[in-house]
Amino acid sequence: MSAGESSPRRRPGGRTGRIRAQVLDAVRAELGERGFDGLSLDGVAARAGVHRATVYRRWRDVGGLLADLFAATGEDDWQPQDTGSLLGDLVALNRENVAALTEQPSIAAALIAASFRSEEAARGVRRLWEERYARCEVIVERAVARGEVPAGTDARRLLVAATAPLYHLLVLLRMPAEPGLAEDAARTAVVAASAGAFAGGSRDADG
Amino acid sequence: MSAGESSPRRRPGGRTGRIRAQVLDAVRAELGERGFDGLSLDGVAARAGVHRATVYRRWRDVGGLLADLFAATGEDDWQPQDTGSLLGDLVALNRENVAALTEQPSIAAALIAASFRSEEAARGVRRLWEERYARCEVIVERAVARGEVPAGTDARRLLVAATAPLYHLLVLLRMPAEPGLAEDAARTAVVAASAGAFAGGSRDADG
Repeated sequence: MSAGESSPRRRPGGRTGRIRAQVLDAVRAELGERGFDGLSLDGVAARAGVHRATVYRRWRDVGGLLADLFAATGEDDWQPQDTGSLLGDLVALNRENVAALTEQPSIAAALIAASFRSEEAARGVRRLWEERYARCEVIVERAVARGEVPAGTDARRLLVAATAPLYHLLVLLRMPAEPGLAEDAARTAVVAASAGAFAGGSRDADG
Repeated sequence: MSAGESSPRRRPGGRTGRIRAQVLDAVRAELGERGFDGLSLDGVAARAGVHRATVYRRWRDVGGLLADLFAATGEDDWQPQDTGSLLGDLVALNRENVAALTEQPSIAAALIAASFRSEEAARGVRRLWEERYARCEVIVERAVARGEVPAGTDARRLLVAATAPLYHLLVLLRMPAEPGLAEDAARTAVVAASAGAFAGGSRDADG
C-alpha cells in the first residue's frame, strides 16, 4: 500500500536513470494501448527491453509502477504559459488539457481511469493535481498584479472553475470535445473572477 | 455489448416488478459495499433472495445488471427544487449532489467508478446525466423568466459550471467535502450567468 513512498527515486542520468526512463516509457505505452487491465510487470519489462528481475525488484508490482510514473510526471519542468492576460493563460492551459485528454491514446485519461482501480494511482493523481494547481497559482498572481481580478482571489477555486468542466465533459461524461470547450470554460472563470466570485470567501450574491 | 438496449423493461408492480426491485436493491447494496470487483450475479441473487437462474436469464451478466440499474434510476420522478431564485435552486441541487457523493457507501460514486470498468456502466452514466441535465433545464428557464440571467443563456453550460467542481473535487481528486463547496460552486455559476457568460456563445434561434 505504501509503494508510493518506497518507490525508486534516483538521480536522472546514468544506467539507473536510463532504465527508469525506459520502464516508465513502457508503462505509459502499455497503459495507453491496453489500459489498467493490460498492465503487467512482464509486459512492461518486455516492452522496455529490461530484465524482468530488475523490474520486479525495483517496482515490485503494478502499483509501484504507477506510483513511480506519477512521481516522474511531477518531476518535469512544465510551467503554465504567460500570455499577458488571465483569459489567455487559462485558454492556453485548457487547450493543453483538452489535447492531453483527447489524444489517442490518452495517457492522462488512462491514469485517471487507473485511479479508480489502484490506491497508488488514486494517491498519484491527487498529488500530481495538487502539484499542478500549485504551479498554476502564478496565473492568478499575475492577474491580481495586472488588476484583472480582486486581491484575495482564491487561486485554487478559480483554477478548479476554469478546468473542471473539461474533465467533467471529457472524462466523466465521455463526450467528444466540442469546439470552444477550452475557451468557454476559461471565459466563464474569468467573468466570475472579475466579478469577485473567488474573493472574500462565502458571501451573499448581490447585484 | 448491447445489454443496455435489451435489458428487461417491465411494468412496475406484480411479481416481475417486485423481483426487479429486489434485484436492483441488491445491486446497489453490493456495489456500495464491495465495489465493481465484488459484484457478481450469484452475490446479487443471494442478497436479493431471488433464484440464480432467474437473475442469469433476465440480466445475463454484470453489465446487464448495471444497465438496468441506470435505466431504473432514470425512471424515478426526481425534480429539481423550486426555491424561487437561481442561486437557491443551484445550491439545493449541489447539496443533493454532495450528499449523494459523500454518503457511506456512496452508490453515486460507485456507479461513476464502475463506468471506468464497464461499457454498459459508461453508457448508463452518460444517459443518466443527460437525462438529469434535461430535467434541470427548468432551473435556467425560471431564472430567465425572472430576469436573473439573460435570455439565450445556455442551460447545459450553466449547469455544468455549477456542478462540475463538485465532481472534480470529490470524485476525481477524492478530496473531503469542504464546508461551502455546494454554495461556492453555485454562486460562481450565478455570478458568471448574470454577467452573460453562458449567453450568446452559440446563437440559438429562440430569443
